[in-house]
Amino acid sequence: MIGPDDVRAAARVLDGVAHRTPVVRSRTLGEHVFLKPENLQRVGAFKFRGAYNKIASLPSGAEVVAFSSGNHAQAVALASRLLGAHATILMPEDAPAAKVAATRGYGADVVTYDRYTGNREEIAAELAQEHGAEIVPPYDDPLIMAGQGTAALELVEDAGVVDTLVVPLGGGGLIAGCATIAKSLGVRRIVGVEPAAGDDWVRSFAAGERVEIDVPRTIADGLQTHAPGELTWKVAAGLVDDVVAVTDEQIVDAMRFAFERLKLVVEPSGAVGIAALREGLVEAPSAGIVISGGNVDAQRFSELIRDATIARS
Amino acid sequence: MIGPDDVRAAARVLDGVAHRTPVVRSRTLGEHVFLKPENLQRVGAFKFRGAYNKIASLPSGAEVVAFSSGNHAQAVALASRLLGAHATILMPEDAPAAKVAATRGYGADVVTYDRYTGNREEIAAELAQEHGAEIVPPYDDPLIMAGQGTAALELVEDAGVVDTLVVPLGGGGLIAGCATIAKSLGVRRIVGVEPAAGDDWVRSFAAGERVEIDVPRTIADGLQTHAPGELTWKVAAGLVDDVVAVTDEQIVDAMRFAFERLKLVVEPSGAVGIAALREGLVEAPSAGIVISGGNVDAQRFSELIRDATIARS
Repeated sequence: MIGPDDVRAAARVLDGVAHRTPVVRSRTLGEHVFLKPENLQRVGAFKFRGAYNKIASLPSGAEVVAFSSGNHAQAVALASRLLGAHATILMPEDAPAAKVAATRGYGADVVTYDRYTGNREEIAAELAQEHGAEIVPPYDDPLIMAGQGTAALELVEDAGVVDTLVVPLGGGGLIAGCATIAKSLGVRRIVGVEPAAGDDWVRSFAAGERVEIDVPRTIADGLQTHAPGELTWKVAAGLVDDVVAVTDEQIVDAMRFAFERLKLVVEPSGAVGIAALREGLVEAPSAGIVISGGNVDAQRFSELIRDATIARS
Repeated sequence: MIGPDDVRAAARVLDGVAHRTPVVRSRTLGEHVFLKPENLQRVGAFKFRGAYNKIASLPSGAEVVAFSSGNHAQAVALASRLLGAHATILMPEDAPAAKVAATRGYGADVVTYDRYTGNREEIAAELAQEHGAEIVPPYDDPLIMAGQGTAALELVEDAGVVDTLVVPLGGGGLIAGCATIAKSLGVRRIVGVEPAAGDDWVRSFAAGERVEIDVPRTIADGLQTHAPGELTWKVAAGLVDDVVAVTDEQIVDAMRFAFERLKLVVEPSGAVGIAALREGLVEAPSAGIVISGGNVDAQRFSELIRDATIARS
């Protein structure tokens, strides 16, 4: 479990290292809507906050291991380089070449595995033992959760206390940290947003315990988790007030809105909060929305927009 | 002519009204490169600064007229609404419906004309006489130039004095204002960037006087001027040190870079400074780059990226 002081401690660790991303507004979304664009964060996603906070707690020169094909990989790679740690990242062998190159570009070693025959947890554990390394998990860790919470701390510091905070839901690290600090500061309501295809959080709240689903098919690749994390669930279950779901089509519409109105590039997972607001799934006198990341390449974005345009015509 | 004090006066007029856009950096562009993303400005472009500064100088309830199919139209419309003025915007009848709608959305009246048979200056003059209105020109006006210069003032205030300031070149309002204030603050060198297809500024500097060219065919629609402005030329001729040109292909490459690395949506005209830096046309120990605007719709962006991808393959 974590408390508000853990998030404040993380903020001190991240001071001058993570970008303090701005708060932006769009009158089209509402007069009292405040967006926190973590797509402008280092490595293009909030993941840098947690990874840095975690790795900063290890001895200098530490060996770390992480498994991820997404933003967490680059976050661990960059945070390790900045802190003088050495990172080995386990990625599926069919991960996009650009992501492998970006991760190596930050100075990490990349080890690939066959995602159909290999078990990444086991391989990571073996790697960790081999290197005498610490595993940096993507969300199920108090320091990771606390680090992610600094996004909400900054949002409230810069925009004031909002009625409702809207946060994307994947493994739950972001919402666990954000809910912890936001509620302590007087935010009334925390709403999580997940892809409709992968409603593990909606089901878990309905059941009152963690429910596992098949890995969902959605364009929101950062939110393709099959169950809430163990620790994140413990933290979030008592703090999150509501969970809503958005379709892939609504996500692309929100990405287009961010592009044309906010002039911001937002990846599918990062756009779910905007989608929820635009679809009327969140009604609040004032709202903060965390835009979690912007790592979508121009080619992929173009394909999503083209497919959506064809579907509409 | 204008001086640094005119830009400072404009900054006071714009305080709390225009967004103070952030300064962003990309280590890929260089350790000492500072970008001023005016795509995040109100109406999505720096044009808001000059239009507001100009209209704020008129009596409350004034009638204003402007001709533009681009960012200036929306800038005049919004500034008028904020200041209680009434705007009539003259647009070609084949202007994109979205731009007409956006301009009307800000509360302006839109009057259309046939761009093949009508003379927009004459029609605007008639409209102005009819309405007892003041024409708000897109660049050739001291208050417009001074307003645009506030972008460079903020850049230097926030990033420090850079060696070289890189500014897109269309009619010249932006560079005239920016060069005026930047040189007064110690910036050593001002470099303008224009599309290779429309090198009216390069030719004018070579000739030592304003040279007219045919309206250039370029994707940078905001820079499709056929000659420097009369007033902007008088101001810029003595302050601008160099003019470089970039191709449409280099512009699309810079737009893609801004999308993928900066997570920013930049319109073709806005991307010329990034293109110049990436192509090695500007070498400086430190540089500020004005990104002038971000008004490109997702569909158009996708087409530009697709065409570039096909051309490369």
